[in-house]
This record gives sequence, C-alpha cells and structure tokens, in this order.
Amino acid sequence: METMTTWRERLWIIIFGSDTVAGKTFDVLLILSIVISVLVVMLDSVKEISEVHGSLLYGLEWFFTLLFSAEYVLRLLTSNRPSRYATSFFGIIDLLAILPTYVSIFFPGSQVLIVIRILRVLRVFRILKFAQYIRESSLLMRALYASRRKIIVFLFAVLTIIVIMGSLMYLIEGEEHGFTSIPRSVYWAIVTLTTVGYGDILPQTTLGQALAALIMITGYAIIAVPTGIISAEIAHQTVDGKKDDGRRECRECGEAGHDNDARFCKFCSHDLDFFEDDAY
Amino acid sequence: METMTTWRERLWIIIFGSDTVAGKTFDVLLILSIVISVLVVMLDSVKEISEVHGSLLYGLEWFFTLLFSAEYVLRLLTSNRPSRYATSFFGIIDLLAILPTYVSIFFPGSQVLIVIRILRVLRVFRILKFAQYIRESSLLMRALYASRRKIIVFLFAVLTIIVIMGSLMYLIEGEEHGFTSIPRSVYWAIVTLTTVGYGDILPQTTLGQALAALIMITGYAIIAVPTGIISAEIAHQTVDGKKDDGRRECRECGEAGHDNDARFCKFCSHDLDFFEDDAY
Amino acid sequence: METMTTWRERLWIIIFGSDTVAGKTFDVLLILSIVISVLVVMLDSVKEISEVHGSLLYGLEWFFTLLFSAEYVLRLLTSNRPSRYATSFFGIIDLLAILPTYVSIFFPGSQVLIVIRILRVLRVFRILKFAQYIRESSLLMRALYASRRKIIVFLFAVLTIIVIMGSLMYLIEGEEHGFTSIPRSVYWAIVTLTTVGYGDILPQTTLGQALAALIMITGYAIIAVPTGIISAEIAHQTVDGKKDDGRRECRECGEAGHDNDARFCKFCSHDLDFFEDDAY
Amino acid sequence: METMTTWRERLWIIIFGSDTVAGKTFDVLLILSIVISVLVVMLDSVKEISEVHGSLLYGLEWFFTLLFSAEYVLRLLTSNRPSRYATSFFGIIDLLAILPTYVSIFFPGSQVLIVIRILRVLRVFRILKFAQYIRESSLLMRALYASRRKIIVFLFAVLTIIVIMGSLMYLIEGEEHGFTSIPRSVYWAIVTLTTVGYGDILPQTTLGQALAALIMITGYAIIAVPTGIISAEIAHQTVDGKKDDGRRECRECGEAGHDNDARFCKFCSHDLDFFEDDAY
Repeated sequence: METMTTWRERLWIIIFGSDTVAGKTFDVLLILSIVISVLVVMLDSVKEISEVHGSLLYGLEWFFTLLFSAEYVLRLLTSNRPSRYATSFFGIIDLLAILPTYVSIFFPGSQVLIVIRILRVLRVFRILKFAQYIRESSLLMRALYASRRKIIVFLFAVLTIIVIMGSLMYLIEGEEHGFTSIPRSVYWAIVTLTTVGYGDILPQTTLGQALAALIMITGYAIIAVPTGIISAEIAHQTVDGKKDDGRRECRECGEAGHDNDARFCKFCSHDLDFFEDDAY
Repeated sequence: METMTTWRERLWIIIFGSDTVAGKTFDVLLILSIVISVLVVMLDSVKEISEVHGSLLYGLEWFFTLLFSAEYVLRLLTSNRPSRYATSFFGIIDLLAILPTYVSIFFPGSQVLIVIRILRVLRVFRILKFAQYIRESSLLMRALYASRRKIIVFLFAVLTIIVIMGSLMYLIEGEEHGFTSIPRSVYWAIVTLTTVGYGDILPQTTLGQALAALIMITGYAIIAVPTGIISAEIAHQTVDGKKDDGRRECRECGEAGHDNDARFCKFCSHDLDFFEDDAY
Repeated sequence: METMTTWRERLWIIIFGSDTVAGKTFDVLLILSIVISVLVVMLDSVKEISEVHGSLLYGLEWFFTLLFSAEYVLRLLTSNRPSRYATSFFGIIDLLAILPTYVSIFFPGSQVLIVIRILRVLRVFRILKFAQYIRESSLLMRALYASRRKIIVFLFAVLTIIVIMGSLMYLIEGEEHGFTSIPRSVYWAIVTLTTVGYGDILPQTTLGQALAALIMITGYAIIAVPTGIISAEIAHQTVDGKKDDGRRECRECGEAGHDNDARFCKFCSHDLDFFEDDAY
Repeated sequence: METMTTWRERLWIIIFGSDTVAGKTFDVLLILSIVISVLVVMLDSVKEISEVHGSLLYGLEWFFTLLFSAEYVLRLLTSNRPSRYATSFFGIIDLLAILPTYVSIFFPGSQVLIVIRILRVLRVFRILKFAQYIRESSLLMRALYASRRKIIVFLFAVLTIIVIMGSLMYLIEGEEHGFTSIPRSVYWAIVTLTTVGYGDILPQTTLGQALAALIMITGYAIIAVPTGIISAEIAHQTVDGKKDDGRRECRECGEAGHDNDARFCKFCSHDLDFFEDDAY
C-alpha cells in the first residue's frame, strides 16, 4: 500500500500542482489538448470542412473525450477529498466538458445531435483554468469583487434607462417604423446605448431621432462610470497592497482583516484567492 | 388613540424603513411587484401575446395598480409629514406610477389608449428606489455630483464639435448623399462621434469620408475625458473618505465642511445624502 | 472727455467682465442670441421649413448679424488694446461669426449662396466662449495640455495600425469585396478600429474576417490608453493642486515653477490660464 | 585613415543621433520622405489616379526606394557594430522597407505585382521611429509592459466569452439566420462585443436577441477593465517616478531595482528603455 500512496501522491503533484517540471508539462499539454478539441468542434460546424474531414474530426472528438475522461477519473482517484473536487467549480466544469459526447450516443437523432454537438463547446470553460496560472488575475478578480456593488448599481441604472427609453421610442416611432413591441424597442435601445448600432431598426421621425441622439450621448458618456469604478479599485489594490481595509474575508473561517496581498488566511491558513479552490 | 399611533408607527417602520425583518420583506415584495407589473405592460405590447392572454394581462395590470394605490395611501397616512412625502422625488414617482391606469378609464379611445398604456411604463421609475438600498450608490452619486461641472463642459464641447462637423458635412456631401438638412447632418454626426454607426446615412465623397474619419477618431479619443473625470473623482471619494474638501453643503442649513463619508450634517443633523429624502 | 472714459470703462465691465449683475446679464443674453441665431441657420437648411418661413428666418439672420456686428464694434471701442483683442482667439472668432452674412450680399449667385449660408454656421464657434464661464474647464484644459505629447504618441500609433491594417485588407479582400483602393481600405480600418462599424464595406473572406476581428479587439482594448493618460493627469491635477511640478510655463515671460492652481504668473503677473486671454 | 574615421563618426552622429542640428534635420527629412513614399503607394492603388499619373508615381517609388537603400548602406557603414544594427528591430524594418520594390523586378507577373506593391506599405513601420523622439512614449511603453499580464488575462477572458457566446448563438439562431458555422458565429460575437456592430449578421429569434443584448452590455461594461488597468499603471508610473518597485530589469545584466525614471542600468549602464536599441 505504501507504494500506491506514493504513486497517488506523485500523480497528485503532476495533475493538480504546477510547481514541478512534470506538473507544468502536464498543464501545458492539457491546455493544448483543450484548445485543439475546441477547434475540432468549431471546424466540424463548417459544412465545407465537415463534409470532407467529417470522420477524422469525429475520431479526434472521441480521442479527446476519452483523454479528458481518463484525466477526470485520475483527478478523482488522486485527490485527498474527491467529493470536494467533484463539487468544486472546476470539478463540475471538468465533468460537463466530457458529458456531451457520451450523451450523443444515446440520443442519436440527427436534429438533437447538432444541439448536443454544440453543447460540447462548453468544455471551453476548462480553459478558464489557465487564468489560475497567471498571478495577476487574482488582483483583477479582487478589484471586480470589491466593486461588485457599484457595478450592480450602474447596470441597474443602465437597465432602467434602457426600459424607459425603449418604451418611449415604441410610443414615438410605433409599429410602422419597425418598433413593433416594447421588448423589441428595448432591444433597439440596448443596441443604441451600448454604441453597437446594427442599423436593422432605425428611428425615422424627427422626435425619435432626437431621443435616439440623447440615448447615444448618454451611452457614450456613462461608460465613464464603470471605468471610473474599476480604475479607482485597481489603483487602490495596486498601491495599498499591504494595507488592511477589512474587505477580505476567509471563506473557511469567516475571519476578516487580511492584507490585500495575502494569499492565505492568517487564522486558519485557508487559501484566500478566488480561483484556487480546485487544488483539492 | 394610543394604539392607533402605535399602529401607524409600526406601519411606518415596515413601509419606509428597511432595518427590520418586516421592513425588508415589504421592500423585496414591493420591488418584485414592480418588476412583474412592468413585465406585464411590456408583454401586453407584443401583439402575439396580447391577442391570446390580453384579458389576463389586463387583470394583472389592474391588480398591481390597485396594490400600488393602496401602498401610496398607506404611505401618506403613516408619514409624519405627508405633504413632504407627496412632494418628494419618490412621492411624485409613486403617484405617476399609478395614474396612467386610472386615466385610461376616462379616455377609452382606442388610439389614445395605446399612448396611455405606454405612459404606464414610467412606473419603472419606482425601481430606482432599489438604488437607495444599495449603499455604494451614494458614493457614485457624490462622485457624479462633484464632477457635474466638468461633465457639462465636456458635453458642451462635444455638442459644439457635433454642430460644426454636422454643418460641414451638409456642405460637403449635400442632399444627394442623404445629408438633406443640417439637423439631419447633426444627427449623423452624433451617430458617428458616439461610435454607434448605424450606416443609414453614409459619406460618399473623398472629402466627406476624410472628415468622417476625423470625427470617428475624435469620438474614439475624447471618450477618455469623461472617463478621466469620473475615475479621478471616484478615486478621490474612495481614498479621502475622511478628508474635508469643502465641497459638500447641507441642503438644509447650507453649512459646508462635512467629511466625505458623513451621512448627516454636523450642524443641523440633516441627511446629507442625495437619494435618502423620501424617508419622510 | 472724463465722462466718455467712464462710459467706456462701464461698457468694458459689462461687455468683457462677468462679475457684475449687468455683465452677467449681458453674457447670458449674448449666449442666448448665439444659440437662437445658430438654430435659425439650422432650421433654414430644412427645405420644408425654409419654404414656409424663409423670409422670417432671413430677417432673423440679418437681425442677429447686425446685433453681433454692433457688439464687435463696441468690443473694439471699449478695449484698452483693440489690436490685441482683434488678434486674440475670440476676436478672430467674433469677426468670422459675422462675415458670412455680409459676404453673401456681394456674391448672390444661387449655388455659391448655399455654400456661404453654411459657412455662417461657423459662428457656432462663439459658443465656445461659454466655456470660459465655467471654472473647471481650465483644469480640463490643463490636463489635456499636460498630456498632449502622450496623446500625440497614441494617435500616431493608432494611425500606423490603421494604415498597415487597411493596406493588408486591400491585399486580402481586393476590389471585388469593396476594398477598391488603399485609401478606401484605410477608411474602412478607421470605421472598424473606432468601433463605429457602418457596415457599408464588409470583409468577405475568412482571412479578411480574422484580420477584421483582430482590428476590432485592438480598437476595443487600446481605447484604454488615452483614457489612462487623461485619468492619471486629471487625478494628478486635482490632488496636487498646490504642488509645483515645473510643467507650467508663463507664456509671457517664459518662467516655470508655478503652482497648479495658480492663475497668474508669480514673476510677471501674466494670466496663466488657457482660455482667458480675450479679456483684453 | 584618420579622416575617414572622422567622416564615419560625423555621419554616425547625423544618421543615428538627433542631438545636433544636422542630425535633427536628417531625421525630419527622413520622416518626411517616408510619409511621402507611403502616400505614393496609397495613391497608386486608386485606379483613377494610377491611370493618369502611373509613370510619375512609379518614378517616385523608385526614387524613394533608392534613397532608403543608400541610407540603409550608410547606416551599416557608419555603425560600430553593423551586425547588431542589421539584427535590431529597426534594422530589420529598414531592410523590409526597401526589399519589395527590388523583388517586383524579378517577379513581374501582374497578379503577384499587386501583392508585392502592398507589402511595400510595411515601410510605414519606419515611421514608428518617430516615437523614439517623443520622450513620453517610453512611459506609455513601460505602463503597457508592466500591465501586460493583466491585459493578457483580460484578453483571454474576452476570448472565452466570445467563443462560448458565439457557439450558443450558432445553436440558437442556426444557419437560416446567417449563423452558418461556429467560426462565423464567433466572428459575429466579436463584432457585437467590441460594439462595432456592422449589421451584416443579425439575431432574429427572441432568445437570440436576448443573448445578443447580454453580449452587448457585457462588452459595454468590461471595457472598464483594461481601462482601469492602464489608468492605475500610468498613474503609478507618473506619481512614483523615483520609487523602485522592483519591476524593471536590465535586459543586459538582468539586475532589477532600478528607479522608474532611470534611463540606464545602474549596474552595467545598459539602456533600460524599450525603443532605444537601434542607436547601435
């Protein structure tokens, strides 16, 4: 049993860790496999390519699915707390990334198959893991997390503007100019306020164009608000790395008062960072 | 009379306050009702839905209108200063939110009715109340209020650019390329400067396209100005919470010199925050 | 002669100053007149309106032109240094704002007249004066002036990207997809990079769409650069009002070392602000 | 030989340096020549112009190519370390800027010629040299370099959103609404998220429009992230010019610990700046 435990520990270091050469190599190969498998699914949706290389892409798809399945089983076997891994953010993503291919066996209906094939693309979520290797992402996450309330208020204000403006435009322009219902007018308001401007629905009356101009200038100017929020927060996080602002709480013991650049809880040693909890 | 006063006080705490469990529950239910009633009006405007579920939506609309009417009366009855509530920002919004449904009884003309039905959407303003429950919104409000002059200057400069550029484009492109009048050219300039870019009016001449390119780059670059203003102000408000910069004035006694994180005037105890005055 | 001098001085205070009640009233009326006269020119370009109210608008145009002419003469008469006013920024704008109407008398050719009528819109520049009344505009001007070099570098980098990307798209897409020449491709690159996106010229090949996607993401991301420059500069100007950073130079004596919130040169008392030099 | 060395040194100062009057004149003339030669290539692609002035433009193109060739040879001759110059960033650009014209002699096929003619536009890279003369560009470069990791994380997150959203839209809208393949849907997602909004591919179903609205608001809001990153970094670089944050490493000796405003390594005197290494 001694040797098996050692094997398990070694595999754990390779699969979950990224500090050793073997661990790093494993991670790089894994990310490469994920990217290729996503490209396979994307190319398979292009009719010209799937007609010629359909069977090759089908084979590659199964190859990567089996590979990721084996990896998932190994993660469960080597983890000290398998149930915790299975219920963690990346544990669920890992499972969701392999399921669609298997599900497509039992439901081989041609139409349904297309739908399922697309769901496989959700395995792209696995790539999010990559973020964990880049140190600075946690600072960004902290800044976004710290300013979440301000951003919600902002999004709420934007939503209110959009609903009111969309309704007014429905009243002003009416069905004959393409504003056939309030939801459609609201869709137009979103397209205009976010400065996307498809041009499929267009105000035709003078009053409608005046209100549209107002929405555009509003959308153009208020983008400054979320930008200001995030700028101030990132500057705050960057400069005051050592200052405790009482904002960070340990998700394990609930204690606050950690330095902004602390990685572990000083009371229970739990990892404080946002995207690190799949290492179990 | 003793009991009645107590009842009024209890209701006041539930309706106006949000610190007790009952008060919080009331607020959440109210916001939920507002959102649903707005959705009812929006769905009613979709022809396919209103043809099938028209009477149900009509019933729901009256249900919510009566509910909000009862709430409005209770607010007036429980408030210590009813006239102050009735003339406050949210008092007026509360009244405007229930009026359109009643008005639609006396003016049952089909065409006019559609107009009135849309005016009901203005009850969406009530949702703005939600903002008051989110603490950080007041910091945003203060930041926007403190930088209002700079933003007006910016909007004024943008307006000047738009009018001049629009007029020049009318001169350069002329009626044959869709720039039929200066107001329409100014509308095009707004669509272009704000980077919305519908594509319904397009410059065709080389000189027109060169000027259009200039407007685009201008619009792309000057967005930095309001963003910079708001960023600097939010950073200022966040960092210097305790510092008195003499910018805040009490709207009751007119005295200045309050800390940035102060909620009440230190001279007359009046509430200093922007969106809190409906609690009367 | 004593009295006349007094009269001149009084008029000078009313026309050039804005500290007295009379001076403020004059400024407000002037701005109102300018806005109305611009609206007259704009409405005159709308065929439907000019056909009906053509003579009224023509009359109003001459009324405002004569009014502004009288004002220009009074400014010259009351100024201590008329030549300095005449050659100042606003002196030239004041003159340009009244010239087009007079020029239209001597060149009554119908076609030419339309061109001249549009040139009158340039009088909108006068509104820029309004900026001088809003104090905070000078802080914005200083921030923009201090970061002018960084913004030039940024605009230069953007221009380089646009020229190269536009040329590559001409090579990739070619004439059959609307990219008929390099200048036209560069125009498309500007429309795309600034996220305006008219949709009149569209990449059709896979490679072209891939490059277009790259340009879009570039344009989307690099907007952060000018925003960052201005944000940092405004924050710097706001916070360090008293700190001398050696950046401000007196345009009169050339000496540097002035505080950021100083209005006058401490060596020669010359006005340091950007938009104040028409008060002579 | 003494004289020749002196000549070489004098030429080196003129060609590589920009501190003397001759050196500055040389640089300005060079940049002017580059701009004109780029304009020649651009105008040559406009059919109307090339049909009339084709031979003149052809002559000018050869004139500038020979001029830049002579300049390239002089740079090699006067440089102390010619191999270092030839392999430096600008050495390669200088060579690439003259090659296309020569290559077009040996491959006179009409179709290929067009391709080569466009490659010449790459000589526009030479203009980038201009940046080195503007001092503040190095601060921008440092700010971008210091925040490169955060920007990569951001671009990666954006890419993930785009791939998932594009795939979902392919599933929802399908081929009949123009979303013919996942790559094409991803292209649409990029056009929408970056708020370009061409309008060539449009969501038609209610669910598709709802998801599109979500993508637009996401794209509109997350632009705040790179802006915040750069803002914080530029503010940091501007304010803490003298503070050593251990971020700068000498590319020659690898030592860190240099002040932010230091131009040369304090251990080996190597130039620390990003765009200065073509002076060899």
